[in-house]
Amino acid sequence: MDSLQPQHTNRQYEEELRAVRADLLKMGGLVEHQIAEAMVALVNRDEPKARETIARDTEVNRMDVEIDERCVQLLALHQPAASDLRFITTGLKITTDLERIGDNAVNICERALELNEEPQLKPYLDLPRMAEVAQSMLKDSLDAFVRDDAALAEEVIERDDEVDQLNYQMYRELLSYMAEDPKTIGRATRLLFISKYLERIADHATNIAEMVVFMVKGRTIRHMDKKKHE
Amino acid sequence: MDSLQPQHTNRQYEEELRAVRADLLKMGGLVEHQIAEAMVALVNRDEPKARETIARDTEVNRMDVEIDERCVQLLALHQPAASDLRFITTGLKITTDLERIGDNAVNICERALELNEEPQLKPYLDLPRMAEVAQSMLKDSLDAFVRDDAALAEEVIERDDEVDQLNYQMYRELLSYMAEDPKTIGRATRLLFISKYLERIADHATNIAEMVVFMVKGRTIRHMDKKKHE
Repeated sequence: MDSLQPQHTNRQYEEELRAVRADLLKMGGLVEHQIAEAMVALVNRDEPKARETIARDTEVNRMDVEIDERCVQLLALHQPAASDLRFITTGLKITTDLERIGDNAVNICERALELNEEPQLKPYLDLPRMAEVAQSMLKDSLDAFVRDDAALAEEVIERDDEVDQLNYQMYRELLSYMAEDPKTIGRATRLLFISKYLERIADHATNIAEMVVFMVKGRTIRHMDKKKHE
Repeated sequence: MDSLQPQHTNRQYEEELRAVRADLLKMGGLVEHQIAEAMVALVNRDEPKARETIARDTEVNRMDVEIDERCVQLLALHQPAASDLRFITTGLKITTDLERIGDNAVNICERALELNEEPQLKPYLDLPRMAEVAQSMLKDSLDAFVRDDAALAEEVIERDDEVDQLNYQMYRELLSYMAEDPKTIGRATRLLFISKYLERIADHATNIAEMVVFMVKGRTIRHMDKKKHE
């Protein structure tokens, strides 16, 4: 408000920064919704919902490009320093993870549509559980980001183990289905892929959380002791 | 050299910018090497090479963090404008893709180690072909990045179709192996995963190429008509 203050504290700048924060949360919410809808489409064998969810991915992609553009504009016009600069550059990287999570939700829908061509192989219990954990990880990683909350981010990173375990269980289980009855192979491999999409969604949330810890603590926990049960 | 020139044209800045460019190419070269080594480990059933390649991933991860840090420092100290700003913010996003490609090379090695516990299921022809195309896509996407070459980037994007096709062929072929002989299921699912890792490596190269076109042309081709044969 005082024109003698440095440019990066002026009102317009603060508003633009808030807008980026709000947009990232909005994109996160949309992507979370995409995961939930993909799982409903799978579990209820709901073809129209699968197609709607696939179509809605264009919105995720649009937000990705828009937020990146806003971040670059913020950097260009206001030359933010210190913590704001870390926030914006982290935001630029987070959009990539959110967009890829959206792609994985699309992939779940595509496999769900293929699975609908045959009777259901088995009741789905582990997959919705994996999706639930992955969604909570995504939500908390973004909350940690906008609140500068390294402790919450670290907690998200720990939760990745449960998803990896569930993915491994699914792999063992589906392998025995296939071994017992080769007629299940087509369906089992599709479920195997869905399990991996969910595991990858949790990996993206973990990546976001790692970047948040790095942003807040300014030290590198990124890439230490990274699990890869793929 | 002239102290009255704007800060962003001074010698130190130009050197730092060149260093970021060189580091990104170096990281790209390392990641390319990781893919090649992973494929040698797979095809030659070479356990020590698989383990070396997995161990070398820490180097990829270290470069990821270092380059990001350099980019943030450049933004903080020199407030670059226009095309340099686009270059640096694109660089910040590209490191993520390179690091994930490195993870996929590690995943190939992990599956190769598991495959070594049984006799080889089939001669590997399509997988090395996929790896070759994916590697060339990676190399060219980075060359396009440092040379501002949108035409080359567009050509990379087109090449993704071949990898998707090969991945789909592998899927059909491995499915019939499993259906004919359930004893092959363990090995076939691992090869299925390797095929998907390679397809994902090509996707990351495609993402890099899309960002380069966006950077050069300043228009959005990102996320248009994206194939998802996962």
